[in-house]
Amino acid sequence: MNKKDLYKNIKKKRSYLCVGLDSDLKKIPKHLLKYEDPIFEFNKKIIDATADFVVAYKPNLAFYEYLGPSGFNSLKKILDYIPDNIFKIADAKRGDIGNTSEMYAKTYFETFNFDAITLSPYMGYDSIQPYLKFKNKWVILLALTSNKGSEDFQKYNNLYLEVIKKSKEWASNNNMMYVVGANNEKDITKIRNLIPNHFLLVPGIGAQGGSLENISKLGFTSDCGLLINNSRNIIYSDSSENFNLKVNEKVKTIQADMEILLKKNNLL
Amino acid sequence: MNKKDLYKNIKKKRSYLCVGLDSDLKKIPKHLLKYEDPIFEFNKKIIDATADFVVAYKPNLAFYEYLGPSGFNSLKKILDYIPDNIFKIADAKRGDIGNTSEMYAKTYFETFNFDAITLSPYMGYDSIQPYLKFKNKWVILLALTSNKGSEDFQKYNNLYLEVIKKSKEWASNNNMMYVVGANNEKDITKIRNLIPNHFLLVPGIGAQGGSLENISKLGFTSDCGLLINNSRNIIYSDSSENFNLKVNEKVKTIQADMEILLKKNNLL
Repeated sequence: MNKKDLYKNIKKKRSYLCVGLDSDLKKIPKHLLKYEDPIFEFNKKIIDATADFVVAYKPNLAFYEYLGPSGFNSLKKILDYIPDNIFKIADAKRGDIGNTSEMYAKTYFETFNFDAITLSPYMGYDSIQPYLKFKNKWVILLALTSNKGSEDFQKYNNLYLEVIKKSKEWASNNNMMYVVGANNEKDITKIRNLIPNHFLLVPGIGAQGGSLENISKLGFTSDCGLLINNSRNIIYSDSSENFNLKVNEKVKTIQADMEILLKKNNLL
Repeated sequence: MNKKDLYKNIKKKRSYLCVGLDSDLKKIPKHLLKYEDPIFEFNKKIIDATADFVVAYKPNLAFYEYLGPSGFNSLKKILDYIPDNIFKIADAKRGDIGNTSEMYAKTYFETFNFDAITLSPYMGYDSIQPYLKFKNKWVILLALTSNKGSEDFQKYNNLYLEVIKKSKEWASNNNMMYVVGANNEKDITKIRNLIPNHFLLVPGIGAQGGSLENISKLGFTSDCGLLINNSRNIIYSDSSENFNLKVNEKVKTIQADMEILLKKNNLL
């Protein structure tokens, strides 16, 4: 998916919400365990309940690797089930040498048909470059994450700004995004000074303390430029047989908030 | 495996060689493709040909993920086939938030029974800590890698030294190692000043220009402290039906060189 189509979907859905599909057998509603593939059944219900109100889905691969071969089968079925016009992010946080990166790129961009993959910048340009060769596919580079450990090295001599400064030369805002935690409000302006037009993938709203309104005001670009991710707060909001109703209610509320913010900033 | 047993194996085998099991269907000898699981057959032959001369194996997970569910099945069979007293490293280069790291740790330490996993430090302490809770399991943190891109951020204000300085407080030299490329000879002394007793996992000998003799002289500790990795140079050294003979010859030569260096430094 290219940037123009992504913004078109944002305007159509009046939403810049991404839902994290972090499927944990221990946390999904119990009645689903009777199915042959509970993980797929769970995600099917989540997708049905949310697809009209979100522009992106982001499965974290760890949750599928944990399940072994069957997890990979479930993930493939989930990817095939997601409607075409929704942006699909492999939350992989990989980062390896060239020939290995090429294997990962083929796996997630071709076999699974993801639109984007999250990557760690630690190993530098040649660990990222193999992913940039795929047309209409995106790299989402970790810049400033929302966890406490982001203080350890990302803030060391403002490494996260150096990561953005250097890596923005490797690609354009049509195939590169950055992960920036919503709890880093005071850093968003510094980041926007460096990359006024790149999309940011933003975790950390809600539980981790970020405010949707503040982050939107600080982070919006002329084509929205934000994908706000929410995982556990949405997908595990209810454990009854009708959990999909609660999930639907949750995303509708967030979408309504987002619609107001988009309008206020003349983005619709 | 603990550090004492690792050194015991080094002395027994007179070797500190690690073989990277990066299995690529396009590169394995053609006659193996007739088997139901060519990747397993290939690795079985490699393990049979090398087990007496190596102390560690390191499958890079990308090569198995690329093959989808069948790749995970092959990897499990390979892990089960490796003799017990050989150190098993999951070359994963993961790095994610706490609950996700916990999933990865369980997957690779429990389901697959790896002894160690390579991790990226970018997300800091809470991305590493979940792995450190497993008894007799190891974290191998990327410090200074052997690829060209290591210049981009690892050398930014000597970030790689900061990574070592901070992370060595998170664990001991009984459950933490570091990846240091063999082509970084002039940095090894700086690293040894910070961590005189930690094991280093060293890629980059041979093709990437590192010298076994120099790196050993600079990097040895009182219990060896080095695992030298070699992947493609060994496992793809021949493509005939008798490829295992050439592989065996290759590891024997390296083992003989290592034996001389171990003796010279009073490590046997």
